[in-house]
Amino acid sequence: MSAAPDTVLFVCTTCRRPTGAADGGYDEPGPALAEALGARLDGSGVTIAPMQCLSACKRPCAVALKAPGKWTYVVGDLDGVEHLDDVVAAARLYHASADGIVPWRERPLPFRKGVVARVPPLPGADRSTPETRS
Amino acid sequence: MSAAPDTVLFVCTTCRRPTGAADGGYDEPGPALAEALGARLDGSGVTIAPMQCLSACKRPCAVALKAPGKWTYVVGDLDGVEHLDDVVAAARLYHASADGIVPWRERPLPFRKGVVARVPPLPGADRSTPETRS
Repeated sequence: MSAAPDTVLFVCTTCRRPTGAADGGYDEPGPALAEALGARLDGSGVTIAPMQCLSACKRPCAVALKAPGKWTYVVGDLDGVEHLDDVVAAARLYHASADGIVPWRERPLPFRKGVVARVPPLPGADRSTPETRS
Repeated sequence: MSAAPDTVLFVCTTCRRPTGAADGGYDEPGPALAEALGARLDGSGVTIAPMQCLSACKRPCAVALKAPGKWTYVVGDLDGVEHLDDVVAAARLYHASADGIVPWRERPLPFRKGVVARVPPLPGADRSTPETRS
């Protein structure tokens, strides 16, 4: 019986962020952000899951917080260096929350301004994972 | 033992869509869209769930398709009348899909252009609901 991770932080690894250069260049901050988050959140109960494309391409770099029975949040407009502490803090707050909804005033600023979408848990879903219920 | 619904179509009931009038007016197409979808999808295996705010406020009107073990899709820029058939078709295709990913060419046009975000299923989640496993 293997327990599924309680909270998963998906990090889009294909987000392209325009650099503003005249040549139309871009960078892809996702992979480095995922690696940095993995180091920072080790042992926290939050598992980092690098993922190709969260379809929030207009809002790079994007991440999503998801856990059984909680609201899912997709957040974009993130800078992998400038906002690293904010993502770590937001992930810990989400993980500690009962329903995935972190009170507005407690959220790091990028998680107030950068919300791309949120989706409720499925009706009838509880906070256990299928693995821990079987 | 009660079975949770297999596919849920969340419909944002608080999306405000600017009417373009000089007075800055808006309409709220979500409630009517949810009601129309309920009639059209009755018995399809897709349950309509009106929901206050999916936090996709810049992309009214927004809906989200979610099912156990499948990718979740949030889609916006929807007109409750013009796109009603498209939403019905997309919900049926999503419900019939194995993983929630409907091939691009099969998707109704608003579900190609209007994707706000998508989120993978949790690692280890299968396609059963907690209720049907217990």
